[in-house]
Amino acid sequence: MSVTAPAGFEATGVAAGLKSTGKPDVAVVVNRGPLKTGAAVFTSNRAKANPILWSQQAIADGAVEAIVLNSGGANCFTGSFGFQTTHQTAEKAAELLGVSAGDVLVCSTGLIGTGDEAFRAKVLAGTETAIAQLSADGGPAAAEAIMTTDTVPKTATFAGDGWTIGGMAKGAGMLAPALATMLVVLTTDAVLTPEQADAHLRAATRVTFDRLDSDGAMSTNDQVTLLASGASGVEPEPEAFRAALTDVCRDLATQLMADAEGASHEISIHVRGAATEDDAVEVGRALARNSLFKTAIFGNDPNWGRVLAAIGTTSAEFDPYNVDVWMNGVRVCTQGGPDRPREEVDLTPRATTIEIDLFSGEETATIMTNDLTHAYVHENSAYSS
Amino acid sequence: MSVTAPAGFEATGVAAGLKSTGKPDVAVVVNRGPLKTGAAVFTSNRAKANPILWSQQAIADGAVEAIVLNSGGANCFTGSFGFQTTHQTAEKAAELLGVSAGDVLVCSTGLIGTGDEAFRAKVLAGTETAIAQLSADGGPAAAEAIMTTDTVPKTATFAGDGWTIGGMAKGAGMLAPALATMLVVLTTDAVLTPEQADAHLRAATRVTFDRLDSDGAMSTNDQVTLLASGASGVEPEPEAFRAALTDVCRDLATQLMADAEGASHEISIHVRGAATEDDAVEVGRALARNSLFKTAIFGNDPNWGRVLAAIGTTSAEFDPYNVDVWMNGVRVCTQGGPDRPREEVDLTPRATTIEIDLFSGEETATIMTNDLTHAYVHENSAYSS
Repeated sequence: MSVTAPAGFEATGVAAGLKSTGKPDVAVVVNRGPLKTGAAVFTSNRAKANPILWSQQAIADGAVEAIVLNSGGANCFTGSFGFQTTHQTAEKAAELLGVSAGDVLVCSTGLIGTGDEAFRAKVLAGTETAIAQLSADGGPAAAEAIMTTDTVPKTATFAGDGWTIGGMAKGAGMLAPALATMLVVLTTDAVLTPEQADAHLRAATRVTFDRLDSDGAMSTNDQVTLLASGASGVEPEPEAFRAALTDVCRDLATQLMADAEGASHEISIHVRGAATEDDAVEVGRALARNSLFKTAIFGNDPNWGRVLAAIGTTSAEFDPYNVDVWMNGVRVCTQGGPDRPREEVDLTPRATTIEIDLFSGEETATIMTNDLTHAYVHENSAYSS
Repeated sequence: MSVTAPAGFEATGVAAGLKSTGKPDVAVVVNRGPLKTGAAVFTSNRAKANPILWSQQAIADGAVEAIVLNSGGANCFTGSFGFQTTHQTAEKAAELLGVSAGDVLVCSTGLIGTGDEAFRAKVLAGTETAIAQLSADGGPAAAEAIMTTDTVPKTATFAGDGWTIGGMAKGAGMLAPALATMLVVLTTDAVLTPEQADAHLRAATRVTFDRLDSDGAMSTNDQVTLLASGASGVEPEPEAFRAALTDVCRDLATQLMADAEGASHEISIHVRGAATEDDAVEVGRALARNSLFKTAIFGNDPNWGRVLAAIGTTSAEFDPYNVDVWMNGVRVCTQGGPDRPREEVDLTPRATTIEIDLFSGEETATIMTNDLTHAYVHENSAYSS
């Protein structure tokens, strides 16, 4: 049921002609209340698309009644014309829904530089069509309409104690620090204030979407939004709600990683024994971004030397000559030297686990990434995206 | 003539059985003086191979009589046994040459973790064989013996005013900041003190090898060494010598970029209008490491949005919405928006030029990189290196 699993939400997805394939490309999610609580986190790239610039302003008061999302064009680096397109999209939705434009968020994804008059006309018409078709079971249609190179729609739900969380996500590449080419909408019928929603969302994304680093590239359009309708009338126990929201985010992040462009391995990098959590993240991320490591995994080659060479570039606190490395459960390196023979490591399964012990403290972090494959090169060289 | 172009040097390369192909894999370069001036710069990776640890100590006094280099094994993460191998290699060369082991540098390249008893025996025997074959025209043989995945040996010479510079380099991948998988030996018969040699070498490598970033991965074994014999009896004019040394380094760096594993484009990223040189380097390097940009160039796709998205991740001083970008001379983006149609850009030549104007100052930098190709993935996944 995606974003319409919780009470108080309607959604839909329609084909507005933005995608040359004719597939659905405009989605609308509406919060019917009684609360209109919203919170959002955005790409940390300084190059931000127009919908990001708009949504950052609109979310400031913590009130959101609707969100309009389009695939088939990023509306990024399209100048003031592009910003006006976003503004007009919010106004169009607001007018049709009888709400304030300042309570409508906008998200776009697709090719940077796409946002001309034809784009504007299609987005506005698609918004109107979509709003006329809103329904309480339109979540799956919305999840489909935000897909770009995704091969499957991504949705998740969580049934709490009298409240529910639903979510949808798109993203299949450019998954990098601080969210990347990722549009996510999370909904709940729990009773939350804007401050609670913001705190829960930041806590959940920090250890899930922010730990996903498919190819080190950071998008201009990433946005993760949480909407709370309060329709259940239940004020959730804070720890339980945060844990559930984190579960939903982790579920969606895992789906994003599994559908990353051209990947043949999903790699979980577990770093432990770090002096600080930041150190653990830095070490995991340095490995996740190392092309030589990523190609070795594609080749099913347990080349642990590339692991040590990659993490040796960090400023994290550890002794490079006192590090243990496991690949799929086999300790291939201990104290910075060879341990078990590499022949013992089976890297043929898609699910790949790298464990690194830095012997410098008690902190840990897990980074999720993918291998670097021929298919990745093909998808990202043969098509503009 | 490679490293034996200047007077006072002898060199050779021999096959010691380290390479399974039977090709030459041990090189020796000897400085016959009268000076024994030496200077070297090393990888900034904290994970350093044993020969780096040795050479860093040996170079401290600025005196070098010989350098032994091997391909076919990095002797990295091989523990104290590996360090003893390096030490014994220096002692073996010193004994045969009648010099101090502390004046013999050692360089290794190949697979990390390779450095067992068989490796040691072959390196020691190869060193003995090589020293017996030293000759004043052995430079080309030495350049061939240090090759790994290089498809051609790389050499350069410069004829100054009464003095000469020669050089050889190996490297074909992992070419990243602060030198990477790169072994370079530069020789000169100019009269230089160790302090002069060190200053000239640092100045020359800073704007050449340090600006080469093929795939963002940084090696454990990189070393660039300058040896000065003083055999010409000429004290060069400092600016002229530094300019010549920079030219030789740029020549070798360009050869390394042209032979990078699997590349189909050599990309020069010129950043101008930067507030500081560091900003220019940061912007150029962020682009050089962006997989989406690199695959687009492989696909001959002038996807300037990926340029802006890549540089938007930096902390350099500039307005992301006031940046101009040229691709092979065509301004595709101005003030952060579309300019000339992408159809005007021809990316089919190997030599590719990206120009970025940040409009924030007068500083500039050029970073050299490669595209990300199917062949890169193949070479780095199918073989351990």
